[in-house]
Amino acid sequence: LRCAVSIGDLNGVSAEIALRAHERVKHIAKPVYFVDKEVLEHAAYIAKLTIPSDFECENIGGRLEIEPGCVTKEAGSYSFDSLTLALEAVESFNCDFLCTLPISKEAINLAGHAYKGHTDYFRKRFDKEAIMVLGCQEMAVALYTEHCMLRVVPPQIRKEKLAEFLIVLAGNIDIAPIGVAGLNPHGGEGGVLGSEDVEIKEAIEIANRHFGRTIFEGVLVPDTAFIPKNRARYKLFVSMYHDHGLSALKALYFEESINLTLNLPIVRVSVDHGCAFDIAYKGKDVSLKSYINAFIIGSRFKNDRTF
Amino acid sequence: LRCAVSIGDLNGVSAEIALRAHERVKHIAKPVYFVDKEVLEHAAYIAKLTIPSDFECENIGGRLEIEPGCVTKEAGSYSFDSLTLALEAVESFNCDFLCTLPISKEAINLAGHAYKGHTDYFRKRFDKEAIMVLGCQEMAVALYTEHCMLRVVPPQIRKEKLAEFLIVLAGNIDIAPIGVAGLNPHGGEGGVLGSEDVEIKEAIEIANRHFGRTIFEGVLVPDTAFIPKNRARYKLFVSMYHDHGLSALKALYFEESINLTLNLPIVRVSVDHGCAFDIAYKGKDVSLKSYINAFIIGSRFKNDRTF
Repeated sequence: LRCAVSIGDLNGVSAEIALRAHERVKHIAKPVYFVDKEVLEHAAYIAKLTIPSDFECENIGGRLEIEPGCVTKEAGSYSFDSLTLALEAVESFNCDFLCTLPISKEAINLAGHAYKGHTDYFRKRFDKEAIMVLGCQEMAVALYTEHCMLRVVPPQIRKEKLAEFLIVLAGNIDIAPIGVAGLNPHGGEGGVLGSEDVEIKEAIEIANRHFGRTIFEGVLVPDTAFIPKNRARYKLFVSMYHDHGLSALKALYFEESINLTLNLPIVRVSVDHGCAFDIAYKGKDVSLKSYINAFIIGSRFKNDRTF
Repeated sequence: LRCAVSIGDLNGVSAEIALRAHERVKHIAKPVYFVDKEVLEHAAYIAKLTIPSDFECENIGGRLEIEPGCVTKEAGSYSFDSLTLALEAVESFNCDFLCTLPISKEAINLAGHAYKGHTDYFRKRFDKEAIMVLGCQEMAVALYTEHCMLRVVPPQIRKEKLAEFLIVLAGNIDIAPIGVAGLNPHGGEGGVLGSEDVEIKEAIEIANRHFGRTIFEGVLVPDTAFIPKNRARYKLFVSMYHDHGLSALKALYFEESINLTLNLPIVRVSVDHGCAFDIAYKGKDVSLKSYINAFIIGSRFKNDRTF
């Protein structure tokens, strides 16, 4: 397998991660880094790292003055070009899946690319409702709602819309059973604490009927959704909102988590952290776990659509 | 120290816990069990357990036909009487703190006691805004809102009301720093994703000014609030709602958690699980960790008001 790697914002930690993890990831899938050799040499020089001899770069025909830790229009522009070309390499079947290193929303906006981040870009580029799954091999969470105010979450819990989400999710990933968590304390206590959990129950039934078998189980009571017994039964959970699933996931598996984007024409994985401008090029021991796990999960998902 | 133990709903697992954990807890604080010897003998007989010779019971002058696993008016009534007498023993200084074993809300309601649970009863009995803290020695969470629909949480995040909560909390427990988590994804991204996190920030400042020192820190981004680095810094967190803090707490420390109720005239601890009617009197290996931890934390809190 070949993995197209977009190099991310080079003022952050992405070059250090790519260079230091190369020996580890190359045995999982052959990485192809979308970065100009000259720019990379500059980054390696500042980071006091050497470029491995089998580090395959695809030139993107740009130049960049690296400014460690700074949010700049130039780095934003460069990261966006790297992303575009890496994506095209997967679309044209030169590579099997895409792994994105972190970009800065502020930097790409400065460069005139008005996206909120990778997922937003993919949604618009492919006109598809991308689904975000975060996690590692032990536990993963698919998010029904993502970056929205908590107060607008409850009105979105309607059985038809949620059932559609569940059907698209199960159509994209080959895992069962999937545990679906509720919205209100104690799962709404039979409607006394909100009607949304009843909608969730009905959405689960609609989705299971659609497939003619029980893929989704629940409603899991939110506060005990991720207790050991449930983690033994479910590898994948559905959370109704960002901070329910992710606060537990990150408490358990902080540095190991990755981001898998479903319902796109391509397979895309990503590290689950940002540019880490504060520690870039300082010789700090940046964790490589998320990047390595992104390769493991990306190649597995490409092969058999499991996590 | 002497601990008054209310025996809980005897159709559930509480007698088994009390009998099996006695040897362990008696070295932490001397337990006084509020149950009639005759009723306890009946429970021990069904559970196939023997009553330790130093198992001190206070008769409550009632009778009960135990019906394993059933929700009955009689067991509800008995559990409520045990609670009332155990509480009075702490109020009259015969015991130093109260440990409650689980009651059934349905059963006490059948018996004509219209409370939603222990905490609701204490609030009404003492006319005080009890604060629920759940956790264990490694990590604890104080809840700003509890058993309410998620949709009514955001409107309650107002700086004056939250600052008052924080001031009462810090006035009741001797721990600093305390980490305060936000409400919206990424802590609201500076107001783009909701204004509530700005209110939380201001509430923290008001509370710290009140004490003239930094007790509260934050706003912690909700999804990374409980990552290892933060758990190393904070032993106590404040969560804005039930399932933010508790889903992470229970993912990490499910069977170890206990419930400590603050802002009452007495010290009260409790196990962090229900009656477990489904496994009562079946010879199952009911976990004793929560009950033992309740004794440890209750006696420590009684001594120096720390967790």
